[in-house]
Amino acid sequence: MRAVAEISDPIHGYFYLSSVEKDIVDSPLFQRLRRIRQLASAYLTYPSAQHTRFEHSLGAMHLAGYAGNVLKDKEYVSSDDVQMLRLAALLHDIGHGPFSHLFEEVLEVKSNITHEDIGRMIIRKSAISDILAKHGYRADEISDLAFGQSSRMFLNEIISGGLSVDLMDYLQRDAYFTGAHYGRIDAERIISSLEVYDGRLAIDRAALNSFESLLIARYQMFKAVYFHKTVRAAEVMLLKAMMLADGHLHLSESYKRVEDYMRLTDDMTLANLLMLKVDVNNNNDKDDSNIKELRLAKRLAEDYRDRRLFKSVFESILQASSRLINRLTDARYLKDRCDEIAGIAGVDPDMVYIDSAKAPSIPRAPGKEEPRDLILVGKEPFRVKRIELKDIPLISSILGYMNMIRVYTIEEHREKVAKAALSVFGSEAESWYERIAV
Amino acid sequence: MRAVAEISDPIHGYFYLSSVEKDIVDSPLFQRLRRIRQLASAYLTYPSAQHTRFEHSLGAMHLAGYAGNVLKDKEYVSSDDVQMLRLAALLHDIGHGPFSHLFEEVLEVKSNITHEDIGRMIIRKSAISDILAKHGYRADEISDLAFGQSSRMFLNEIISGGLSVDLMDYLQRDAYFTGAHYGRIDAERIISSLEVYDGRLAIDRAALNSFESLLIARYQMFKAVYFHKTVRAAEVMLLKAMMLADGHLHLSESYKRVEDYMRLTDDMTLANLLMLKVDVNNNNDKDDSNIKELRLAKRLAEDYRDRRLFKSVFESILQASSRLINRLTDARYLKDRCDEIAGIAGVDPDMVYIDSAKAPSIPRAPGKEEPRDLILVGKEPFRVKRIELKDIPLISSILGYMNMIRVYTIEEHREKVAKAALSVFGSEAESWYERIAV
Amino acid sequence: MRAVAEISDPIHGYFYLSSVEKDIVDSPLFQRLRRIRQLASAYLTYPSAQHTRFEHSLGAMHLAGYAGNVLKDKEYVSSDDVQMLRLAALLHDIGHGPFSHLFEEVLEVKSNITHEDIGRMIIRKSAISDILAKHGYRADEISDLAFGQSSRMFLNEIISGGLSVDLMDYLQRDAYFTGAHYGRIDAERIISSLEVYDGRLAIDRAALNSFESLLIARYQMFKAVYFHKTVRAAEVMLLKAMMLADGHLHLSESYKRVEDYMRLTDDMTLANLLMLKVDVNNNNDKDDSNIKELRLAKRLAEDYRDRRLFKSVFESILQASSRLINRLTDARYLKDRCDEIAGIAGVDPDMVYIDSAKAPSIPRAPGKEEPRDLILVGKEPFRVKRIELKDIPLISSILGYMNMIRVYTIEEHREKVAKAALSVFGSEAESWYERIAV
Amino acid sequence: MRAVAEISDPIHGYFYLSSVEKDIVDSPLFQRLRRIRQLASAYLTYPSAQHTRFEHSLGAMHLAGYAGNVLKDKEYVSSDDVQMLRLAALLHDIGHGPFSHLFEEVLEVKSNITHEDIGRMIIRKSAISDILAKHGYRADEISDLAFGQSSRMFLNEIISGGLSVDLMDYLQRDAYFTGAHYGRIDAERIISSLEVYDGRLAIDRAALNSFESLLIARYQMFKAVYFHKTVRAAEVMLLKAMMLADGHLHLSESYKRVEDYMRLTDDMTLANLLMLKVDVNNNNDKDDSNIKELRLAKRLAEDYRDRRLFKSVFESILQASSRLINRLTDARYLKDRCDEIAGIAGVDPDMVYIDSAKAPSIPRAPGKEEPRDLILVGKEPFRVKRIELKDIPLISSILGYMNMIRVYTIEEHREKVAKAALSVFGSEAESWYERIAV
Repeated sequence: MRAVAEISDPIHGYFYLSSVEKDIVDSPLFQRLRRIRQLASAYLTYPSAQHTRFEHSLGAMHLAGYAGNVLKDKEYVSSDDVQMLRLAALLHDIGHGPFSHLFEEVLEVKSNITHEDIGRMIIRKSAISDILAKHGYRADEISDLAFGQSSRMFLNEIISGGLSVDLMDYLQRDAYFTGAHYGRIDAERIISSLEVYDGRLAIDRAALNSFESLLIARYQMFKAVYFHKTVRAAEVMLLKAMMLADGHLHLSESYKRVEDYMRLTDDMTLANLLMLKVDVNNNNDKDDSNIKELRLAKRLAEDYRDRRLFKSVFESILQASSRLINRLTDARYLKDRCDEIAGIAGVDPDMVYIDSAKAPSIPRAPGKEEPRDLILVGKEPFRVKRIELKDIPLISSILGYMNMIRVYTIEEHREKVAKAALSVFGSEAESWYERIAV
Repeated sequence: MRAVAEISDPIHGYFYLSSVEKDIVDSPLFQRLRRIRQLASAYLTYPSAQHTRFEHSLGAMHLAGYAGNVLKDKEYVSSDDVQMLRLAALLHDIGHGPFSHLFEEVLEVKSNITHEDIGRMIIRKSAISDILAKHGYRADEISDLAFGQSSRMFLNEIISGGLSVDLMDYLQRDAYFTGAHYGRIDAERIISSLEVYDGRLAIDRAALNSFESLLIARYQMFKAVYFHKTVRAAEVMLLKAMMLADGHLHLSESYKRVEDYMRLTDDMTLANLLMLKVDVNNNNDKDDSNIKELRLAKRLAEDYRDRRLFKSVFESILQASSRLINRLTDARYLKDRCDEIAGIAGVDPDMVYIDSAKAPSIPRAPGKEEPRDLILVGKEPFRVKRIELKDIPLISSILGYMNMIRVYTIEEHREKVAKAALSVFGSEAESWYERIAV
Repeated sequence: MRAVAEISDPIHGYFYLSSVEKDIVDSPLFQRLRRIRQLASAYLTYPSAQHTRFEHSLGAMHLAGYAGNVLKDKEYVSSDDVQMLRLAALLHDIGHGPFSHLFEEVLEVKSNITHEDIGRMIIRKSAISDILAKHGYRADEISDLAFGQSSRMFLNEIISGGLSVDLMDYLQRDAYFTGAHYGRIDAERIISSLEVYDGRLAIDRAALNSFESLLIARYQMFKAVYFHKTVRAAEVMLLKAMMLADGHLHLSESYKRVEDYMRLTDDMTLANLLMLKVDVNNNNDKDDSNIKELRLAKRLAEDYRDRRLFKSVFESILQASSRLINRLTDARYLKDRCDEIAGIAGVDPDMVYIDSAKAPSIPRAPGKEEPRDLILVGKEPFRVKRIELKDIPLISSILGYMNMIRVYTIEEHREKVAKAALSVFGSEAESWYERIAV
Repeated sequence: MRAVAEISDPIHGYFYLSSVEKDIVDSPLFQRLRRIRQLASAYLTYPSAQHTRFEHSLGAMHLAGYAGNVLKDKEYVSSDDVQMLRLAALLHDIGHGPFSHLFEEVLEVKSNITHEDIGRMIIRKSAISDILAKHGYRADEISDLAFGQSSRMFLNEIISGGLSVDLMDYLQRDAYFTGAHYGRIDAERIISSLEVYDGRLAIDRAALNSFESLLIARYQMFKAVYFHKTVRAAEVMLLKAMMLADGHLHLSESYKRVEDYMRLTDDMTLANLLMLKVDVNNNNDKDDSNIKELRLAKRLAEDYRDRRLFKSVFESILQASSRLINRLTDARYLKDRCDEIAGIAGVDPDMVYIDSAKAPSIPRAPGKEEPRDLILVGKEPFRVKRIELKDIPLISSILGYMNMIRVYTIEEHREKVAKAALSVFGSEAESWYERIAV
């Protein structure tokens, strides 16, 4: 790989771009990632968290090159594989829309499509594919690698999952830019220990402590940052606003034309919400209920912009055994509880929001299945060992623990809704730990 | 001071807001600073430099509180002075427009007004003044403190100048977010050593090494970041685009209505430039030369967005003794040289840009005069000593060294313009050091 | 507190000594701590771990002052209490002998005395007590505070236990000097959140994440550093050498005269072991078995000095439920297993060493009892909550997990002893995790 | 290079030893460096500065491997050269005696020999040469490389001088362990930019800023640490004690037998000084003046151990133009001034010590000559440029500025000697900056 450009990065220091990488990075489709923050709304809580998918993608590329070279030195892959891994990591987030995962929720509900589907489209059918072709790379191969569909499973695992460069870059980066103390990990230790066994990615036994730390760091970042109650408050507001305005702004259909999608950055989407026309006479949409929805969307966007955020009045971090867990994805159930709480509190149901978030405690493997084990390579006589994650004490304790439910409302209804939420959910949130942040 | 909100910051850790501070921070005028990057366009060169005036203002406030408490413990100021210092630091950048200093250049040329003038207006006549009044503070007093007009000179010096919290925050912050190695300073050492002598801010002798380092760090940050040739390339483009489009977009008059000014964030200003109507039939401005200017402005904005930046083909860092120095601010002279170079190179003069930047090697004192000395407080028998900056070896070597001139052009004219620039400026840029980055 | 001297420390930056503190620090008894490494033999594995009890004691003092001031601001303690807390933290390790905990094992076996007993003696009856008295402090009060015997339990808890400044200093310091990635904690967050409830130390709920991290960091430091197999190998050798030579060198009686004890630094003790006279004609001790023991002690010391360390051939990290756990402190049982392994392997029993280490997964409270809960102070309606440690997921997973047993031998017997150890202990070390490092 | 052992280092992270390196590191001669502190007595001022020549030698070896690989990738050297460079860096300090440069002063005065001479002996005629030979390396070649006598000048320059791994390791390491803020440098930037031109080491132009910072960092470390008045106070005491006791302890002849030299660690040498027999009846040396000298040596050692350090009563940092500069190495002149000051002050001349230190502001090149220029490699049209150091502003300002003279005495004579020193030296130390630290 010949370096044609240099990147200076606070996380990884100096690193370099090859010719094909530079062409991709300089393309408008990729430059657009500079305007999509890595952590959507976390900057409203952690003011310095202004970092974007752009820097993260570069960092993931760099780590993929590092991992690739480790595997090349151990003769598992070729130089060409390393370049393809770097390209896959560089492009793994190319499909992300404004506010990343929030927009993805809109897409999923409205169009049943994910950022990975869009990423595949962009890699295969856009200026990106032309650049890849010009440099002799096949867009479909890069796309398969980027989204877990390579036939060599261990290559997929470098891009996503518990040993992935994605995880190792974002934990460090998010910790650095939020200032949270939890995301420090020993990526060098883990990556330099990578091995391949039976087609799967493995690590040297000596790196097990570091792997343990990696998963613990992720768990703590979820609690401190990704699921932070104020961070989620802002995100719930944006999500609701985008949902309400989608019929009008056609956000969920934007992916159909790359030119439209390219324009959808965080701030442009917020600007669109803020500029919604909600005056009856000044709006083509004469339907009253629509106008009401647009008004709410606009108001939410204004409150978001000026940081008048929802207040959390009930919170439960659910044990794996909680009865609630299965219902966290049941939209009907959540809608009913929302109405019930609003009814008890005597407030407009639009002013009560239930946020139920789940995240696998261990990152999903490339094929989305839940990972159960880890392969360790060591010295004789136990050269290779498949270890169940549940047998590693610290990790066993977090398996299944990343479910959370919160009730939000606006400042003025705080007390009423708090009481109502407690009466509706309280009996199911029994252990003290579950109610810790109320 | 009772803490009513907490800030988590990667530079200073946790710190707190008082009630009046929280009200100001939560106001839309202040939240707007989240959308004005601290380093305008540096993020195009240092991808992580996405930090904004918002975080910097909070950081400066925190350091002002620290400095204030040091002086309070030494009985130079009261608790109330400390709160006022914090407010002044919090608001010292409130007048900044999009792309900070770039916009200021437009303002100065077109309206002869500075960000400090606008800051004064905002503090005295906007929602900010109401908040201050509500909490019992006088807007004019805070404004005076924020912009170097307090009758107590040492208080002004805490806000701006070589010992200021402004400098100590931005150097650390810019280094952290760019990843540049130069901005690390020992702010704790300097601030804890602050004294007042004869109405001026002084430091303990033991902190002289740290002060020396502070100024060296600033000098190195100028060379590595603020004056970086690619950073400046992007800024030159933006500046030119704003200048060209000002008659149409009325940027330089936006300060006259707070509501307009509030909307002028970095990305919104860029969006305005990108959306310029330059189709003759689709534009009210029928004047051909105007249309041509708008087209160029739009093209520059597009190139900026997609990172097709100007290339530096000539660079000179000027010695204090250089004949060129006095002409760096002579617009006529620069325009003529620009035309001369374009003529020799045989290219459109609009494709040749001369960037001449000067910065005082030592930050200006609050009253804008060049600082010449430093007061050191020590033990007997030499209790207080006024030391000339030119007598401190490292510092003497940088006095007067922050002048720089560059010639930029677009990629395709690179070679031709390089030769022309050398023939025009070469004889005056004689020492090797001056041409180092050509 | 008036500062009379300044300390520059890589962990805590600059901090200051009061007059009484400076007198103590400058006394030969305290300066002696500069020659007792914080981590006995870890520097043979982590070369930079050369830090001593001296720096740690200063750091603990500084944090005690910080904690004290937090409690003073919340009106739980007086200024005088803060000074006493600082003195107690400064002196909490004053009783440590060479190689810290290793020497303590010799003391306990041979003289049934601990470093705390010696610390009490030194504080109450030495130059230290004179210094305290001269400055108006009562030695017995400081001694009580330093060793968990103050009547105000929460003060004891600042010095030792899970919220202590001892823990918060040593984790950070050990991580910094070893370069291990695990000891980074948010001490500022925890200390600034300290409260007192019902006579006990408590924290604000918002600091629970940080407390969790603190205990996890400690657990990981045990695995990576304190219980590292090579670190322990060196320590086992030293311990054995000191035990064998004790009758001759009278180490375990040295505490009886302060002058003798003062001379017992790490390197002086090693020098004494290296200079043992083991020539029959040149030794007053005509008893053959004694000579044999001294020879072994001397050889161990030489091997230690030249880093010819024992090799670990069997390792088991024991689950709480393991049958072995109760026998880890049964000297008879361990001696028998040692002989059994040597017999099977056909080697001299002196060449087989069983190292069984236990550490409470949560630091002992001042009164040595195992801590079971934590008091959290929050907002209404759940203002104060006593939370069981076992109800905090991450922490529950490490409760009871710090037991470890290893078999060591010399390089040449490696294979034989490995097989013998596996045949003796293998069936009891069943889960894979237990045998991870074999 | 096959890795056979791993090092964990706080400065450089993990790195590895080859087989020959491991054998050298494990040899008693090399392990001995663990007992020679990098900064002799700085730990009495910066308590954490306990790091030793051992860690520094490993770090320098690691950086030499990095530099070697950069040059190998650019095809200037072979793999074998890289291994030899690593060995040379590993062994460049092997000849250092107790308290490093202090002992060297004794050696130079008494035996006219340097640590490099001893290093050459050890590499060529000791267990080290056997290890080198066993692995197929020629001791004389490694010795030449280690001490600047390779015929390839650029290889010498990697080991010592302004671009050397020695400098880049010690600045970072000393800053890390003292906690001083000045030693942070961008070694990665400089090393990755290394080139060879005309047989000399060169750097890429883009690394010039980093090189500038490197030299500034060194200058600031001299002022803040290496020449710190309390650091030097301790060193002056030790030096005097060793000089006085040399006839009795034969320190300066110890190098003649490797076995003797090996035992001469910092603490053992101090112990020898502390155990000097100074009782007339109990000493073979019946000469009264000798006894008096030994008493003083012993007292100095005791004061050193208990940190009763000399006080600086006069200090001058000399401008290049000062008349004093030429006399800084004139022992006769200094002795006379010492007596003169003692006479005026009316104190025993043994209680007055003049410390005159000089250090080249830029590290000496391997052949000891003063470096005057730097070769920069860039892009066309100015591919290679030899730049005079005096033409780089910051660097020009420090050329020639590292001369310092101080007068020390004991606490009780402080005032008298201060006045006397001022009357003797005052008129020659005219500029304020020269007397800054009085």
